[in-house]
Amino acid sequence: MTQNPGLLSGVTVIDLTRVLAGPYASMLLADLGARVIKVEAPESGDDSRGFGPMHAGTSTYFASVNRGKESIALDLKAEDDRAILFDLLERADVLIENFRPGVMERLGLDWPALENRFPRLIYASVSGFGQTGPYRDRAAYDIVVQAMSGMMSVTGSPGAPPARVGTSLGDIGAGTFLALGISAALFSRERTGKGGMIDVGMLDCQIALHENAITRHVATGEVPGPMGNKHPLIAPFQAFRTADTWIVIAAGNDKLFRTFTNAIGRPELAGNPLFVSRLMRQRHHQALEVEIEQTLTTRTRDEWLALLRAAGIPCGSINTIADLIHDPQVKARNMVCETRNSTGETFAVSGNPIKFSAFADTAKRGPVPDLDQDRERILAELYGKGD
Amino acid sequence: MTQNPGLLSGVTVIDLTRVLAGPYASMLLADLGARVIKVEAPESGDDSRGFGPMHAGTSTYFASVNRGKESIALDLKAEDDRAILFDLLERADVLIENFRPGVMERLGLDWPALENRFPRLIYASVSGFGQTGPYRDRAAYDIVVQAMSGMMSVTGSPGAPPARVGTSLGDIGAGTFLALGISAALFSRERTGKGGMIDVGMLDCQIALHENAITRHVATGEVPGPMGNKHPLIAPFQAFRTADTWIVIAAGNDKLFRTFTNAIGRPELAGNPLFVSRLMRQRHHQALEVEIEQTLTTRTRDEWLALLRAAGIPCGSINTIADLIHDPQVKARNMVCETRNSTGETFAVSGNPIKFSAFADTAKRGPVPDLDQDRERILAELYGKGD
Repeated sequence: MTQNPGLLSGVTVIDLTRVLAGPYASMLLADLGARVIKVEAPESGDDSRGFGPMHAGTSTYFASVNRGKESIALDLKAEDDRAILFDLLERADVLIENFRPGVMERLGLDWPALENRFPRLIYASVSGFGQTGPYRDRAAYDIVVQAMSGMMSVTGSPGAPPARVGTSLGDIGAGTFLALGISAALFSRERTGKGGMIDVGMLDCQIALHENAITRHVATGEVPGPMGNKHPLIAPFQAFRTADTWIVIAAGNDKLFRTFTNAIGRPELAGNPLFVSRLMRQRHHQALEVEIEQTLTTRTRDEWLALLRAAGIPCGSINTIADLIHDPQVKARNMVCETRNSTGETFAVSGNPIKFSAFADTAKRGPVPDLDQDRERILAELYGKGD
Repeated sequence: MTQNPGLLSGVTVIDLTRVLAGPYASMLLADLGARVIKVEAPESGDDSRGFGPMHAGTSTYFASVNRGKESIALDLKAEDDRAILFDLLERADVLIENFRPGVMERLGLDWPALENRFPRLIYASVSGFGQTGPYRDRAAYDIVVQAMSGMMSVTGSPGAPPARVGTSLGDIGAGTFLALGISAALFSRERTGKGGMIDVGMLDCQIALHENAITRHVATGEVPGPMGNKHPLIAPFQAFRTADTWIVIAAGNDKLFRTFTNAIGRPELAGNPLFVSRLMRQRHHQALEVEIEQTLTTRTRDEWLALLRAAGIPCGSINTIADLIHDPQVKARNMVCETRNSTGETFAVSGNPIKFSAFADTAKRGPVPDLDQDRERILAELYGKGD
């Protein structure tokens, strides 16, 4: 078995998904202890196996979200292979798919087709716009839902060209909500004995990730725009220039603001009527920024970080990925883990952010499967050995 | 009862959290059918009740993530109120807290203090850096973990000042992973009979949301930087200017690229050796962008959207929140829902992105609680009426 024990130990997931949203969901389930059997198209498998850059013959893209899974190649249109899929489903708890709506129907594998035979199955779909509504048949990719959801409209700098969130939040967000829905459905099934179908749309998930932009807009008429590195409602809560590079500081409430202005030797700012309350600081954030940067640009980032940390002010550096992987907290929390491909070459991957008291949190993740590598073992489990 | 039936119906959550990461997690649980009893500090309650803009006397910030919960005010340092908390915990499944590590310990409410008395309890903590490691005692807010995780280093436009993700992904991401951990722990408890402690750190969650940046960096040495509105590995997968405003287009694979170049009347681009493969298009994405914009700037966005959709090319407009809420797909999926405060005033809030076949997905969410509004009913449940 490739996975560590965890909260979902004992759960078997049949995973028909490709590329990102679905594979990310099943990776989260594998990190929580589920057994994930990745069913791939014969010959080339998951498209993302070909996505560069490659390392030791394996796609870094594929490795990052498919470690800890098993692989079997099945042609979903061929009778023999379909029989294997059905035999797998007899023993499975969850089926995940991220085809365009309608594809599973044409394959005779949609939930209404499976429900009577597998009433305890949790059938989980993730698609661009979900299984219903006027756009259900449209394809969507990450940037399309980041754009349509308003996520891009609040990200980036005012006046600059629109910016996307630098991770594929359109897919990753949907994958996370899918994993949440599956876990909740597994709980529910323990009590009711019944499975059912989960329908997650990428656009819906971007909307769910909006904090309060929708509530604020409808209540006030204000249209939220990009705020660069600032918070729309709190100041100072942003990046500032120092003598060498940027620093981020979050000193939004009155108490932290007073402590902050004392720490940087500008106590008069807390007494300035322009900055005297949360609301006033937000209203005059530009004037406040000028005042603060005047002082912060006199020393380096690291000098300020040491001084502000000593005073208990939440602050930090804007790390690159290269900085991040050497951070002692990141190491202490096993958030950069190691996996291997079939040639034994190692890959760095993100860790599991859900730490649970009953299970060890190891820095090793199960290996990256080659296409169809687990076929024989899986068939032996289903049909016995040596027949 | 304030919540709709769902996958977590029958689950009771005692929620000690304030502001965002914790309340977002418990809101997701409420949307899935759990009963959430929000325990607030007497007098002013959750800090975010004071966060503007206000609407009909209620904070839009608070309303957006606390609809569908009950509220009781308890002083966790007062003996009488602590007795009520313990009586609530006797009947609860989950306790959520987002205090700085150490605070629950000082209150005698940490997991080791509760474990013997409540062995079936799922004790869920969310904090800036988690309960372990060298930074555990540091406070963190959204922008601090967005910065330290590298999320800001890949977001925004090259050469522009650093940009944060426009939603508070530091909190929202952590809240989502916390809800996932809680749901998986509820499943596990059905099988093992045992509770346990979940420890989620906001920084860890940002790292988990990185798609493949860590894997790519360690394998190749390349340090991912901000890509504006482009995908780091795929082209065209970005925003383009048209005659009036921006459009996003995702035509990354060879087949979609050919269809796209035909659709815009530039079939020669697909034959150009510079753009002939995924890898070549990525390498020459600037030249490709110039060619494509030359054509796209000849017509308006809406003309291109109609033409590209007819050809099956994934594309979309960069909606503002004001555009979003009128979108027919968003309406069809109930992703902008309605809630009310105690005066009956309505608020627009995000909907539940996890649709499940066994439950209706309504466009109404439970009301926004006033501080301590459910005290009498909750005490009557615990101790009987009229005593």
